[in-house]
Amino acid sequence: MANSSFESFHPPQRILMGPGPSDVNPRILEALSRPTIGHLDPKFVQMMDELKDLLRYAFQTSNEVTIPISAPGSAGMESCFTNLVEPGDKVIICRNGVFGSRMQENVERCGGVAIMVDDPWGRAVDLNKTEDALKAHPDATILAFVHAETSTGAMSDAQALTKLAHEHNCITIVDTVTSLGGIPLNVDEWELDAVYSGTQKCLSCIPGMSPVTFNDRAMEKIKNRKTKCQSWFLDVSLMLGYWDGGGKRAYHHTAPINPLYGLHEALVILHQEGLEDAWARHRLHHNALKAGLEALGLELVVPEAERLPQLNAVSIPDGIEDAVVRKNLLDAYNLEIGAGLGESAGKLWRIGLMGQSANRGNVLYCVSALEAVLGELSSSIPRGKAMDAVSAVYNK
Amino acid sequence: MANSSFESFHPPQRILMGPGPSDVNPRILEALSRPTIGHLDPKFVQMMDELKDLLRYAFQTSNEVTIPISAPGSAGMESCFTNLVEPGDKVIICRNGVFGSRMQENVERCGGVAIMVDDPWGRAVDLNKTEDALKAHPDATILAFVHAETSTGAMSDAQALTKLAHEHNCITIVDTVTSLGGIPLNVDEWELDAVYSGTQKCLSCIPGMSPVTFNDRAMEKIKNRKTKCQSWFLDVSLMLGYWDGGGKRAYHHTAPINPLYGLHEALVILHQEGLEDAWARHRLHHNALKAGLEALGLELVVPEAERLPQLNAVSIPDGIEDAVVRKNLLDAYNLEIGAGLGESAGKLWRIGLMGQSANRGNVLYCVSALEAVLGELSSSIPRGKAMDAVSAVYNK
Repeated sequence: MANSSFESFHPPQRILMGPGPSDVNPRILEALSRPTIGHLDPKFVQMMDELKDLLRYAFQTSNEVTIPISAPGSAGMESCFTNLVEPGDKVIICRNGVFGSRMQENVERCGGVAIMVDDPWGRAVDLNKTEDALKAHPDATILAFVHAETSTGAMSDAQALTKLAHEHNCITIVDTVTSLGGIPLNVDEWELDAVYSGTQKCLSCIPGMSPVTFNDRAMEKIKNRKTKCQSWFLDVSLMLGYWDGGGKRAYHHTAPINPLYGLHEALVILHQEGLEDAWARHRLHHNALKAGLEALGLELVVPEAERLPQLNAVSIPDGIEDAVVRKNLLDAYNLEIGAGLGESAGKLWRIGLMGQSANRGNVLYCVSALEAVLGELSSSIPRGKAMDAVSAVYNK
Repeated sequence: MANSSFESFHPPQRILMGPGPSDVNPRILEALSRPTIGHLDPKFVQMMDELKDLLRYAFQTSNEVTIPISAPGSAGMESCFTNLVEPGDKVIICRNGVFGSRMQENVERCGGVAIMVDDPWGRAVDLNKTEDALKAHPDATILAFVHAETSTGAMSDAQALTKLAHEHNCITIVDTVTSLGGIPLNVDEWELDAVYSGTQKCLSCIPGMSPVTFNDRAMEKIKNRKTKCQSWFLDVSLMLGYWDGGGKRAYHHTAPINPLYGLHEALVILHQEGLEDAWARHRLHHNALKAGLEALGLELVVPEAERLPQLNAVSIPDGIEDAVVRKNLLDAYNLEIGAGLGESAGKLWRIGLMGQSANRGNVLYCVSALEAVLGELSSSIPRGKAMDAVSAVYNK
């Protein structure tokens, strides 16, 4: 049944440069350990109100309905589909990586009809193809797509896709799990309708919560549902009784108190830095990392114009074994980089520069650790050039 | 959009004697602040395996499928219903408080048919009525009930109810949110089939995760489903790819790393104390609290044989205003007790003695704070007797 003895778990100190979780700011770790209070405590309710304002800042929205779902990004995705899709609804899904397929699963499990628009992994969603699909399916009510594909590092044009959707009487469901806080994301200006994100990417918080924001168009569709939302836990009309009860908060579920302290702190940190400075920081360190990787002879997979600075997909060179490199980096350097996902498993690495991980020290450390590990495995890796390439970007 | 300035949130130090969250052990708070590592890190996977063993100990089960859901108890409840109930399935639900109604919502949102067996709030589930319902509905496949009703403090006979269910070819879904770690719960010996719990009650961890355990009968029903589980996030067959992947763990969602450190620590603490000692501790402090409350002239709502030691529903005396008392306790004494829920709002208080909160200091503090606050509001509250009554129990 159980071993005879168990001890406290003491994790190693890693440097997290995978696709998330990213390095967590010590201020956030400290916030997690503050005393737990009740989920209906007036002081907690005050914190919740501030948290909503901070999320509005991060999303650049004034949407009333802007809250953190008490579960990971996958549940945030499900909250959008389960509230917005009714049986029989037709949803056009742009798929250019793993998360498009997950959207398809969501739509079908809600009884909806998924129309897939496929683009190559590692490329942005194609606007023309999407427009053709919208024209071919005038009865579609929703267009769903991923702003920043975590499985490939590709960035799509969320504003243009939403404009197309609106021209064809569709609302949008937008995955911003990896974009929030890392690249420009302007929910109101771009008129995105239902948006979900994660906490463990460019917000540099712990995983386990999913910020979402719904505008009036999305809420109108929810209010006009003919059937109940199939999830009780994710039913936005019930969640709002707790998160937005005006003077009175109704118990729905018990909110994850301490993780919410952490998210509040992460958003205070983002607000103190300022969104534009955070976006510029991700861009700067991406340029330095790119210079270092290219000096090692490595190739970035995604074309420059469609590339996410915070998530760098790198082709694994011929003759180099994926797992050996990642294991060496982890064991000898405590450095985590990400493996490929789905069809790109074994073909690429995903090197994250998200939130707190996007800093000069991490870039230097990652490039030099890669030089050491790859250099031991292959004589064709150029040596002694990468650090200069990195420094040149910072000294520009 | 956002205020001009935001600051870190510093919660007050409360004493948590409501229906959960309970006081969190400082060891658990410290564990939360340990460095975040990746959800596929070999060290994390090792911790996950230990966590499953520790949960098996807490549940007293050898069920292979014993994992923490990455979301609060309400999602744990939903994971049971959404995996086990298919459209058209008939489910008998014993309702003796708020959570029976929530079960009904769950069944209906899964397309199932809910047959309600009602008992008075504050009483155990009636075995005869349940047996009658099982006889009247031979096509039912599931019996669902709450072992420890958090809304009333009533305890039902989980073993006897499950025996009845099995005699009528039903499997059971059992809510043990408030019982796990606080009163005897023997999943294997009692043959409970699908069981969910919470972390913020007698485990004294933070809210936000939900331990569940499914035996072979439950897993067999899931494997024989004709339709897909309507939730992608809560689909147990997908979750197991991550939690139980043998050598290889498949990414499903990103687990809440640091909260799982906290849960691991909470379970290590429980294992060190030992389940039987933990149950005895809850019983002891309940006896002392009861003596103190009765010396103040207060009445416990639930008959003694059906009473949960860890959650004490107390009638609010005539002429005493619920909200005033709870506000005074919170503002002047940093003491949280729980309000009534649903139909018992305004009629009772729920005083929790869960996990870390079940200690001698808390009992003395709570009784003396109640004496002070109630004494200011009403001259009919007996003064100067409660402390002796409490001490008498401890000095027995």
